[in-house]
Amino acid sequence: MDNFGRRDFLHSATSLAASTFLVGTGLLLTRSARAQVSVQGSRKYGVKALLFDMFGTVLDMWTTLPREAEKILKPRGINLDWQAFGRAWLGEYGPSIVPVREGTIPFVPLDTLFRQNLERVLPRFGVKDLPKDVFEQLHLVWHRLDAWPDVTSGMAALGKTFLLAPCSNGNIAMMADIARHNNIRFDAILGAEIARTYKPAPKVYTMSCEAFGLKTGECMMIGAAGHTSDFEGAAKAGMKTGAVARPNEGGPGKGTSVPRFKVDVAADDLSDLAARLMA
Amino acid sequence: MDNFGRRDFLHSATSLAASTFLVGTGLLLTRSARAQVSVQGSRKYGVKALLFDMFGTVLDMWTTLPREAEKILKPRGINLDWQAFGRAWLGEYGPSIVPVREGTIPFVPLDTLFRQNLERVLPRFGVKDLPKDVFEQLHLVWHRLDAWPDVTSGMAALGKTFLLAPCSNGNIAMMADIARHNNIRFDAILGAEIARTYKPAPKVYTMSCEAFGLKTGECMMIGAAGHTSDFEGAAKAGMKTGAVARPNEGGPGKGTSVPRFKVDVAADDLSDLAARLMA
Repeated sequence: MDNFGRRDFLHSATSLAASTFLVGTGLLLTRSARAQVSVQGSRKYGVKALLFDMFGTVLDMWTTLPREAEKILKPRGINLDWQAFGRAWLGEYGPSIVPVREGTIPFVPLDTLFRQNLERVLPRFGVKDLPKDVFEQLHLVWHRLDAWPDVTSGMAALGKTFLLAPCSNGNIAMMADIARHNNIRFDAILGAEIARTYKPAPKVYTMSCEAFGLKTGECMMIGAAGHTSDFEGAAKAGMKTGAVARPNEGGPGKGTSVPRFKVDVAADDLSDLAARLMA
Repeated sequence: MDNFGRRDFLHSATSLAASTFLVGTGLLLTRSARAQVSVQGSRKYGVKALLFDMFGTVLDMWTTLPREAEKILKPRGINLDWQAFGRAWLGEYGPSIVPVREGTIPFVPLDTLFRQNLERVLPRFGVKDLPKDVFEQLHLVWHRLDAWPDVTSGMAALGKTFLLAPCSNGNIAMMADIARHNNIRFDAILGAEIARTYKPAPKVYTMSCEAFGLKTGECMMIGAAGHTSDFEGAAKAGMKTGAVARPNEGGPGKGTSVPRFKVDVAADDLSDLAARLMA
């Protein structure tokens, strides 16, 4: 029997039964070989797919959350520090995913956690007994977050040459809505929901690359320059890394332009990234 | 505590720890309420997402497989009955997914099974020792299957009003390539690979609807008129069903135009389906 690439090929088949079943006639090929017929990719970097962090990298929560909260709540006579409210709601994100990632509770999609986070944050701002439809409208602001100004055209340019997908902690429904809202064409929605855990758990990166039929080294994780832990997680899984400057990520002038992590490519924005990858 | 929709909401959280964690302040909402901000859907049928069977419903294997096999193998001096070869390769599909669906072997993506099926079929036609790159090129014909002529324009029309996704046994990499090849814009790739089993296992339907944040009754499974078991599986899971006539599905005149299963809507093609859903 030809052993070419067998180990890689059997990656998903862990039992003896499966191994026996999968042993073929010598034509077993590597996983990477089963990949893509449709994209050229970057020869320079050896990558065919770009996987995107979304919150902060593609999406500008710091503008959208306060603005939309004000639009929904102000006409109902509610007045509060909208910036502080947006920051507080977003601030619950990190802690809320920990119990899932650590296995303390089973996987629930991010929509579920964000809804609980909203329940937790509203009373701190003195907002109680919000009618259910208003609460829901507010919750769904996450489904129509605005992308940074360079994203729609930058993604269109990148999509000609690369497979594109979110590799986000956001769930599929949320990401699908966001893609429509910002006219982004993804090839698939990957990330937390298909891996059933949250980044930076290694499985989120590896399963996302596998879903595209590619080795991790053929995929590049794209993150905002300040997202060191995401780059670390992706690089540990074997992925290439690409940073995009987001100088206003935490509000005007409160972001990062130069990554501290040693990424494979650092770009000013998505158009610059497209130029660098195709150079 | 307000019990509104709690059971539905807790659907994914099965342990006591999770239940406790998820019990909130009375603002828990149904899963369906967390759904979509981006599409209008069909008021008549109460559906917001269309989930597509792909093989036979969207894709014409009976034309593509023999034609492409001939293109790849004939220049290498291989001559065989191309129609019979296409039918034989396709014929392995059904039996090959059974051990996964029955749990005899762990989940492997359809690409893996199709490669084994090709290994199995080639010797029957006297083809042995095919070079690896040619074998791979042949295998990847599945990634560039042609859609039926009504599909690209029909999907574009449907996409204005509905969330669209494959709910196919095909894996994500294969479906992403097929979407590019035929210029179809899906919102996500759902189906077997996210559920880690094969249709008509109930999980494939329910997890696909959940991924869009919708109740099964808010999603319609679209299948070729002759695909009774797929309609049965979808309907059992609570989905609506829509049939498309595919009179040439098994070759010229060897298909089905009128479904035997009592579907919610029966259409001549995808454009007709769009008209009926929006009537």
